[in-house]
Amino acid sequence: MRTRTGSSPTIETIARHAGVSTASVSRVLRGLGGLPETVKKVQAAAAELGYVPNAMARSLRGGQSRQVTFAMPDIGNPVYVAMMRHIQATAGAAGYRLLLHSTQADPVEELAALRALADRHSDGLILCPIRVTPAHLDELGRAAAPVVVIGSLPEDLAVDSVRADSVTGAELAVRHLADTGRRRIGLLNGPADTVPGAARHQGYERALAACGLRYDDALTASGRFDAQSGEEAARRLLDRVPDLDALFCANDLIAVGALRALRSTGRTVPQDVAVVGVDNTDLAEACWPALTSVDLGAHERGRLAAELLLSRLGDEVQAPVSRLAVQPRLIVRESCGASAAHADQVGGPSQHKEIP
Amino acid sequence: MRTRTGSSPTIETIARHAGVSTASVSRVLRGLGGLPETVKKVQAAAAELGYVPNAMARSLRGGQSRQVTFAMPDIGNPVYVAMMRHIQATAGAAGYRLLLHSTQADPVEELAALRALADRHSDGLILCPIRVTPAHLDELGRAAAPVVVIGSLPEDLAVDSVRADSVTGAELAVRHLADTGRRRIGLLNGPADTVPGAARHQGYERALAACGLRYDDALTASGRFDAQSGEEAARRLLDRVPDLDALFCANDLIAVGALRALRSTGRTVPQDVAVVGVDNTDLAEACWPALTSVDLGAHERGRLAAELLLSRLGDEVQAPVSRLAVQPRLIVRESCGASAAHADQVGGPSQHKEIP
Repeated sequence: MRTRTGSSPTIETIARHAGVSTASVSRVLRGLGGLPETVKKVQAAAAELGYVPNAMARSLRGGQSRQVTFAMPDIGNPVYVAMMRHIQATAGAAGYRLLLHSTQADPVEELAALRALADRHSDGLILCPIRVTPAHLDELGRAAAPVVVIGSLPEDLAVDSVRADSVTGAELAVRHLADTGRRRIGLLNGPADTVPGAARHQGYERALAACGLRYDDALTASGRFDAQSGEEAARRLLDRVPDLDALFCANDLIAVGALRALRSTGRTVPQDVAVVGVDNTDLAEACWPALTSVDLGAHERGRLAAELLLSRLGDEVQAPVSRLAVQPRLIVRESCGASAAHADQVGGPSQHKEIP
Repeated sequence: MRTRTGSSPTIETIARHAGVSTASVSRVLRGLGGLPETVKKVQAAAAELGYVPNAMARSLRGGQSRQVTFAMPDIGNPVYVAMMRHIQATAGAAGYRLLLHSTQADPVEELAALRALADRHSDGLILCPIRVTPAHLDELGRAAAPVVVIGSLPEDLAVDSVRADSVTGAELAVRHLADTGRRRIGLLNGPADTVPGAARHQGYERALAACGLRYDDALTASGRFDAQSGEEAARRLLDRVPDLDALFCANDLIAVGALRALRSTGRTVPQDVAVVGVDNTDLAEACWPALTSVDLGAHERGRLAAELLLSRLGDEVQAPVSRLAVQPRLIVRESCGASAAHADQVGGPSQHKEIP
């Protein structure tokens, strides 16, 4: 049975035809997924009834707000400001206003940002969680509008994501330190139970193993992802291990704190201790010695996340789920004691790839 | 004649009573001003008819969006990020979402942000223009919703503002350099035809005069308000005046560039050349030597601007126009060669005052 009346069928018609609820039809047609069986039924019914995706998607969404939201974990961290700048540019060019939701990396606030989509003040959300809890997966699975996550998600969750490869990024940094002769390489990490914290730790361990250096818990310290905490952690670590010759810092803010601690304990960078940060923020250039840092592609992640979200809001509501990864590269400056010429050997131009 | 029916009169009733247009009534009651004569007539009629400000203001505004907009000149400059953080916190606590409008300090974009208020997607705007052109005054005078300007405005414009006292801030910096023995003090400025550029120049000249030092055009250079431009301007200036012993930089980004130029020309900071920046951003702490910087109260300006806007959106639609100024203070660090103890002598705790 094919009913072609010149206009697209209603959700009710499709729901009746598929034998599922109108809510399920709405979710599937907006690209928000559902049980595989349900998705199949809805898609079959929609095709059968001559469903026109674009018009339907728009009518289901009702009045568009022409706004998208960026849930920003830390306004004080330049890496998120860099993401915001590129989200703003991409969304703005497409005629969308940018709403800011400051989450302070608090899971409660992140979940609130997801639930707030039901208010319809925003057509979609870019969320950058530093932990993905079961509650996150639950809210992501039933979000009222398209969401793109900057970070890692389980394979079977039908939500688009763009992630950094920060394990590889950490490896690049630590291998570079080992390659240039450092043997007592410490790790100054953020909380180990966060996604970025766990990834930095993993990359650090892998690189040590690959370079034949022994992993030692005593060479690691962790705190928050900020400069003050970085300074404190560096002091604790230097007290315990005075002969450290390198510090791999989980972000540039921690590295700025580490530089302060090294200076105030009379150590010279890079002669006594080499320092590498992560995120390649504007701080890295402002530091002295200028900071070698792993660029995890914050610019690209912001831009790609905005592009994915915009395509969900446009014609591609039924496109397959995207899992993008941005490749890291090491930007070599003075703080690690290697010449800039070495940079080409440890990282190519930033690029992204589809993960199969 | 006093008509008390238990509910507030409509705009139409007030307009008829005052003998002015409904548009004029709407503007006056929303605190947006108008011709003095009109304002007087409307206020008299409103009082006569038993107008209830709050309810009326809300009904005149129609459906509130519960959103406020911050028109941000430069997402890459941490001083605006600091403002944004405090606007976000203040507006968020009052239940408002924050919309971001990136203007790139382009007057065309600033005017667009003002005109966009007519779309009603935002209940009010915080605008931070670096130039105030006649077109700005024109649009400000007929904005469709409350606006607070972070910056200086003419006395007779009925728009709230919060400004820094950056002339005094520049004076603090330059006097401090002179007080600590510097005699060849250069100025690295942004564009002289911007409000901040003009203020820095004025404070620089005043302080030199007060300290008995001669002003010399050859000791000044200007470019943009960013690090790259600061580095270039510093090189030009050092080529022309190799015996400079201090640089007053119009913001921290310019100072970061100046530190690079000094380092690469073999000069030591602060021994050879003392450096002072403006804005006391996070960069000042990250620099080495850590940067002495004038704090122009970006945090306070952001918070106060948000508070003013919220009070216009709340009960105080008819409050008199506010002109707030935040007092500057000098944060002394290593880059100027003075001990931190000196800091107390050159600036007190940050505070704001009402300008009569």
